[in-house]
Amino acid sequence: MASDMVLYWGSGSPPCWRVQVVLEEKKLQGYKSKLLSFEKGEHKSAEVLALNPRGQLPTFKDGTTVINESLGICLYLENKYKTKGTQLICDDPKEYAAVYQKILESNNIIQRIGDIMQYSRRVPESERTEAGLQRLMEALSEELKFWEGYVQKMGAGSHIAVKNFTMADAVIFPIIAALFRFGVSQDKYPNLAKYYNSVKSRPSIQATWPPHWKENPDAVMDMLKNV
Amino acid sequence: MASDMVLYWGSGSPPCWRVQVVLEEKKLQGYKSKLLSFEKGEHKSAEVLALNPRGQLPTFKDGTTVINESLGICLYLENKYKTKGTQLICDDPKEYAAVYQKILESNNIIQRIGDIMQYSRRVPESERTEAGLQRLMEALSEELKFWEGYVQKMGAGSHIAVKNFTMADAVIFPIIAALFRFGVSQDKYPNLAKYYNSVKSRPSIQATWPPHWKENPDAVMDMLKNV
Repeated sequence: MASDMVLYWGSGSPPCWRVQVVLEEKKLQGYKSKLLSFEKGEHKSAEVLALNPRGQLPTFKDGTTVINESLGICLYLENKYKTKGTQLICDDPKEYAAVYQKILESNNIIQRIGDIMQYSRRVPESERTEAGLQRLMEALSEELKFWEGYVQKMGAGSHIAVKNFTMADAVIFPIIAALFRFGVSQDKYPNLAKYYNSVKSRPSIQATWPPHWKENPDAVMDMLKNV
Repeated sequence: MASDMVLYWGSGSPPCWRVQVVLEEKKLQGYKSKLLSFEKGEHKSAEVLALNPRGQLPTFKDGTTVINESLGICLYLENKYKTKGTQLICDDPKEYAAVYQKILESNNIIQRIGDIMQYSRRVPESERTEAGLQRLMEALSEELKFWEGYVQKMGAGSHIAVKNFTMADAVIFPIIAALFRFGVSQDKYPNLAKYYNSVKSRPSIQATWPPHWKENPDAVMDMLKNV
């Protein structure tokens, strides 16, 4: 039951957002929602660390079952509530393969974004170079070209893996939304932009839109503007 | 049917190896096995690129269904052949959660190893520093401490996620084996070493042991000896 569930999450984090989308799609509203502040370091609080030794969000509990990897939570919910709400993993083996292929392949985008975010955090300033950062931006750009092609190939009216909205969209849409929020140009990736603008009105997406983005809807960060 | 399947793989690649283990566990011997050479660049051949635009291994085809993400292939096989051979994903939701948690969390190890491998490939020599490499080695070491703790907590006779051998072992054992092959000290990670030495005799693991490791069984590379 949804009331046995607790989700610890941070606003604007794609891994947290995907879990929220799945909870909406599976009609599991009524779960305990704990919004924590990354800025205040609340993801490293004793309450979170007791459930998740990495001190990361999302952290999730269903009764006495703890699972913290975002994709793991999504699959756990789909498996436990297969017949409730939207079916997010297709039965047909070929469609099943298409959904998993896209879900897992999207780790490449997350990794490229992570490389950029971590460059300024992990590499001391004395070792950082403009060329080094530029290389990471180009790697993300190369990655996004794959996805621009995939969306184009799927064609208008389709979703990211198959015709219908599936787990692949719940997992990948928040990443695409974050890319555009952080300055990636919609003009440079017109097919991804079309996908973004078509899926963003879906009720499960609207219901879970990052609250601090809503406060400042037109803000576009420029961190990724050269990607 | 196994005879409709083609696996393109490279010797010693943990993502390829996990797929081979699953094919063994699911009793799908008889698939077409295409061993390619990374050194000769065969993973970038036209035959592979036609199925996998990234030119990576594993690349997998089952009839007309193509799926190339290693974990995706493993889950596809388990889903399609749930009642054949070993059941690799548990039915019980708590065990299901434990298996997926470990599978997905193990991406952290792969990423840390990848960071080290890529440092010398992606970063030009003029920008590389001893300290930079050391930082990446320490990050892998920090990551392995989590796993050393997990294995210790599971206790003797258990596997990596639950008591039985599951998909988590098929996915993670090849990573652990590669770590020790590349010089990580078994003395420094005694619980991981115990896990490694207990699981390595499993028939599905033995049947798929990387052929070029067999040719030179005692070779231990020293790339990761300081991790």
